[in-house]
Amino acid sequence: MRVLLPDLPEFHALSGHDEHGVPGAEFAFYSQDHVPGEAAEGVVLWLARGETREKLLRTPGLKWVLTLTAGIDHVQPHLPPGVALYNANRLHDRAVAVHVAALMLSAMRGLHHFRDAQHEGRWSSARNPNDSGLHTLDGQNVVIWGYGHIGHLLEGLLTPFGAEVSGIRSSTPDLQRDGLLSRADWVVLLLPSTSDTRGIVNAELLGRLKPGAWLANAGRGNLIVTDDLLAALDSGHLGGVALDVTDPEPLPEGHPLWGQKNVIITPHIASTTTDLVARGASLTRDFLLTLQQGQEPEGRVLDGQKY
Amino acid sequence: MRVLLPDLPEFHALSGHDEHGVPGAEFAFYSQDHVPGEAAEGVVLWLARGETREKLLRTPGLKWVLTLTAGIDHVQPHLPPGVALYNANRLHDRAVAVHVAALMLSAMRGLHHFRDAQHEGRWSSARNPNDSGLHTLDGQNVVIWGYGHIGHLLEGLLTPFGAEVSGIRSSTPDLQRDGLLSRADWVVLLLPSTSDTRGIVNAELLGRLKPGAWLANAGRGNLIVTDDLLAALDSGHLGGVALDVTDPEPLPEGHPLWGQKNVIITPHIASTTTDLVARGASLTRDFLLTLQQGQEPEGRVLDGQKY
Repeated sequence: MRVLLPDLPEFHALSGHDEHGVPGAEFAFYSQDHVPGEAAEGVVLWLARGETREKLLRTPGLKWVLTLTAGIDHVQPHLPPGVALYNANRLHDRAVAVHVAALMLSAMRGLHHFRDAQHEGRWSSARNPNDSGLHTLDGQNVVIWGYGHIGHLLEGLLTPFGAEVSGIRSSTPDLQRDGLLSRADWVVLLLPSTSDTRGIVNAELLGRLKPGAWLANAGRGNLIVTDDLLAALDSGHLGGVALDVTDPEPLPEGHPLWGQKNVIITPHIASTTTDLVARGASLTRDFLLTLQQGQEPEGRVLDGQKY
Repeated sequence: MRVLLPDLPEFHALSGHDEHGVPGAEFAFYSQDHVPGEAAEGVVLWLARGETREKLLRTPGLKWVLTLTAGIDHVQPHLPPGVALYNANRLHDRAVAVHVAALMLSAMRGLHHFRDAQHEGRWSSARNPNDSGLHTLDGQNVVIWGYGHIGHLLEGLLTPFGAEVSGIRSSTPDLQRDGLLSRADWVVLLLPSTSDTRGIVNAELLGRLKPGAWLANAGRGNLIVTDDLLAALDSGHLGGVALDVTDPEPLPEGHPLWGQKNVIITPHIASTTTDLVARGASLTRDFLLTLQQGQEPEGRVLDGQKY
């Protein structure tokens, strides 16, 4: 079995003869600048962009691709017919849930405004707590849109804070969905980007949210129509938004989202931790050992997958 | 029963004849500019500073003081002999625990740095996750120093994030305390300010913490020797610090703490929420009704109280 891996020390360790190695597998390593040309049975796809990614997907003899991401919309359009696709939700789920909880708590405790005040060296407590704008999550109605594994993990983190969590799945009837959204204090987007979900958060939907509601997006940037989001923020209808993903992404310098008062932006790092590469290599090793035993590894992406 | 109350609408409602009122009690209202001079049996102390506070504590005929704070160090030195003191921990405990959890998660997810990058309109993700400096709380060793009701609430919030929480009480033997501190990834100060605790976090103690450890303070500013804290940050020994209380407080413009890279400052608002005044008035009502029934209300502060 010949496999292309990212050119990172943690993945080189897979060719070792110790407990980190995968005996009987042959590896070649790619980087953004260099893609080995020969045939390979599999590609482990990570941190490769644009042309490099497309070149990897054209590898002769390719039978499977393991993308060490949760999203697959950057891979699927370029996948040759008959090549099996696997993704790596379990590598990211927990950190994403933690990151979303951190963003929500930070917003409710006004940490973004206090950071701004800190820049100015200003002790900025309100004289009367009524004017503080500060909340906890107690009693807040949180609707998780895209209610899979991350959503369930997030629910487990938010419930001890007194949040009342409900979920929307692709099977949720429209009427019920709209009822949930109209009562939400927080709407958390954890949807994948598909032809059904792109632009799903548009002016019409934003208009149906409760005035002052907050939005969080840790799914994909293009779930939200950015211009409509800006309008809902400008009008004061939306309380605020916490974005780990944006459209366009990366958000360019000078984009109006950067300077909005109640917009909190992190650069698509919800699942990033200092041990992510090590965890990715470890997941890859388990994946390869499972394949070698002739079994189906976790994470197979089937056509028409829902959320 | 004649009682002095803060001059806020929520407290005026206590003289109403509806379900918010306290029948049979007579109220007078003080503000920072005006303290009624006549005798009163009790004072409900809140949002009064300096001279105003001291004048209130000299009210003729005073039998009890209810301070709607958790801390009592600003009241106790001026309390006339024989006057009973009550505090209002339960008004603050939950929001303080939530605030500390928010600060910790925000620090681990780098939200302060991303806010700084947002100011500059800069999408600042690390190329390699190993260099991200981002963590969750999974497996982190959190030591809560001052392990009372807030500490227990905080433990309940952090445990689902995978933190391993232990507590230090005043009864914890020194050797055990020092062992816990030396292994901590996070030390959370929830101590009251007493002659035993002032300056307890000094150069010597900071030196015994694990390199890279983070500190959080939601107790009192003077638990920490600020100059020693600055030195531990400058040397890189301390990973960072999240402060809701400072010494001096308010932290003056131009103070070196404001500009430190891994210092997160909020202006003593850990327990502040937009409904805090309403909750304070409601607690006051319960307190007065209990007194009227000849019973001892919650929150009596006894001499020599420990943590």
